[in-house]
Amino acid sequence: VAGSRRGAGGELVGDLLDRARNGDRHAVARLITLVENDSPLLREIATGLMAFAGRAHVVGLTGSPGVGKSTSTSALVSVLRSRGRRVGVLAIDPTSPFSGGALLGDRIRMQEHATDDGVFVRSMATRGHLGGLAAAVPQGVRILDAAGCDVVLVETVGVGQSEVDVVRQADTTVVLLAPGLGDGIQAAKAGILEIADVFVVNKADRDGADQVTRDLRHLRGLGGGDATGWQVPILKTIATRREGFTEVAESIDQHLRWLRTGGEFERRRRDRSAAEIEALALDTIRRRFSDVRGSAGLAELAAEVADGKSDPFTAADRLLAANPQE
Amino acid sequence: VAGSRRGAGGELVGDLLDRARNGDRHAVARLITLVENDSPLLREIATGLMAFAGRAHVVGLTGSPGVGKSTSTSALVSVLRSRGRRVGVLAIDPTSPFSGGALLGDRIRMQEHATDDGVFVRSMATRGHLGGLAAAVPQGVRILDAAGCDVVLVETVGVGQSEVDVVRQADTTVVLLAPGLGDGIQAAKAGILEIADVFVVNKADRDGADQVTRDLRHLRGLGGGDATGWQVPILKTIATRREGFTEVAESIDQHLRWLRTGGEFERRRRDRSAAEIEALALDTIRRRFSDVRGSAGLAELAAEVADGKSDPFTAADRLLAANPQE
Repeated sequence: VAGSRRGAGGELVGDLLDRARNGDRHAVARLITLVENDSPLLREIATGLMAFAGRAHVVGLTGSPGVGKSTSTSALVSVLRSRGRRVGVLAIDPTSPFSGGALLGDRIRMQEHATDDGVFVRSMATRGHLGGLAAAVPQGVRILDAAGCDVVLVETVGVGQSEVDVVRQADTTVVLLAPGLGDGIQAAKAGILEIADVFVVNKADRDGADQVTRDLRHLRGLGGGDATGWQVPILKTIATRREGFTEVAESIDQHLRWLRTGGEFERRRRDRSAAEIEALALDTIRRRFSDVRGSAGLAELAAEVADGKSDPFTAADRLLAANPQE
Repeated sequence: VAGSRRGAGGELVGDLLDRARNGDRHAVARLITLVENDSPLLREIATGLMAFAGRAHVVGLTGSPGVGKSTSTSALVSVLRSRGRRVGVLAIDPTSPFSGGALLGDRIRMQEHATDDGVFVRSMATRGHLGGLAAAVPQGVRILDAAGCDVVLVETVGVGQSEVDVVRQADTTVVLLAPGLGDGIQAAKAGILEIADVFVVNKADRDGADQVTRDLRHLRGLGGGDATGWQVPILKTIATRREGFTEVAESIDQHLRWLRTGGEFERRRRDRSAAEIEALALDTIRRRFSDVRGSAGLAELAAEVADGKSDPFTAADRLLAANPQE
């Protein structure tokens, strides 16, 4: 056994992968932690996962704070479980230093599934990395996939371009909305139409739910005839009462069937792989570049800019010329 | 006059800069728009600004949604104006496709200063750019600086590492908190101590304000004796009644005087320039790299990863090898 394969905890990656494939929750959790912490073993984990991943249906769930995302996820998990599916939930925590603790309560709410061997729930935080979410989330998905999950739900707060990018990488993207969240739909116009495969209007018993539904129908109509042939359904749910999630599960299944019939499935998976490769390559470039931080050259250039003797663009050019990326 | 110096609107950068220096609001707004939109004229603008910038006191204001940031900013502007200062406000809009419209209301609230020639208010959105905020904000600050602002307030929602980085680039950073925002302080522990030069507890008339103040004092104590000799003040305000902002303005002034006495002022400005140069260099690298997106090589590598024939790390290495960054 090569010493280089030993992790900080002394485990072997191969052993962890074997155990994870047998549904060992501890091994799954440990692997995700290694990915999250950008472990030196990451590449070995990624390589080892390739043979066992690609089977699960990856479903992204996103929506603004306050739409009832965690309660909805939990209700959807229950329906999927009643249909015999093994389910993984990967909850992406925002990296804000100001709101970092907010999702803890959400995780606690998911505890109704804590004793169910067919459900894996993990939150994942990625701090400050340039390629962060885009590079780490696919590995987290593959781990849950390799552990035998039929469906992997990737849950994100709909805040920030990088999170939208993550959700966009799913096979099927569910966008949650709710009435009473102000100008949500107006604000969301720009990005929401492109990324949603299924719309869910939660809190459907509240005033304004019909208006949200009408707005969505209008927005959907603005998109014109859908050339790809998928009509994005608009479903109503009441997550606190578990109402409507059978329909959500069915729409998700229908979308997967549609993906598989037209070649769209392969196209999306290739797009997803391309995005992942780009993120990793960009991360490599960033790491190379970060080697030059704090070098004598940078300090001198910074002093020139601070003193008004040079402009920052010229200084950046000179920094790059002095520190070639090859 | 060289044709290359003409912008989309036909203006000359030199002419815009001259007018901005004379306090022409239209020219200031136009320049900031050019910076925000990553205009081809950006480099020329940056170069032209160097001779006229570096004079203003740059003050970062940040805090979670709900702390009363815009009302506080407006109240602080009033105090600074009453002391004869010219004030620029650069409000950094988050780039979320889901909450993009939220700051519009804030801008409207700042309209009390709309008819004051000594106040410039501009919001700035930067979407999707890797070096985005870090590269664009310093130019926005320089424009307001060159336009004769004595103080430039950079206001950000305290969400996301990139925004914290922006605020960290200020001469003086004011962190706003308020009671009743849940686990704000707990959550903020990680990042808040390092970046605050002044703490403001807004909504000081509400239940829990004393607790927030006590928590902050405790956190400040945990930081140990401050080697740099600046004791971060903890001030109470009620922004809706304009109470407490004379003290905030005085603390900001005191901090500037402290910066200037110990050499810390130069050190921070050089750090800021270094961060800006790095962001621009990284952006250049990213642009070079983005040239390879969608190339035949990437599509083939993505197909291999999607089909499980290669892992994404190896694919990224091969992409970089095939597309050298020099």
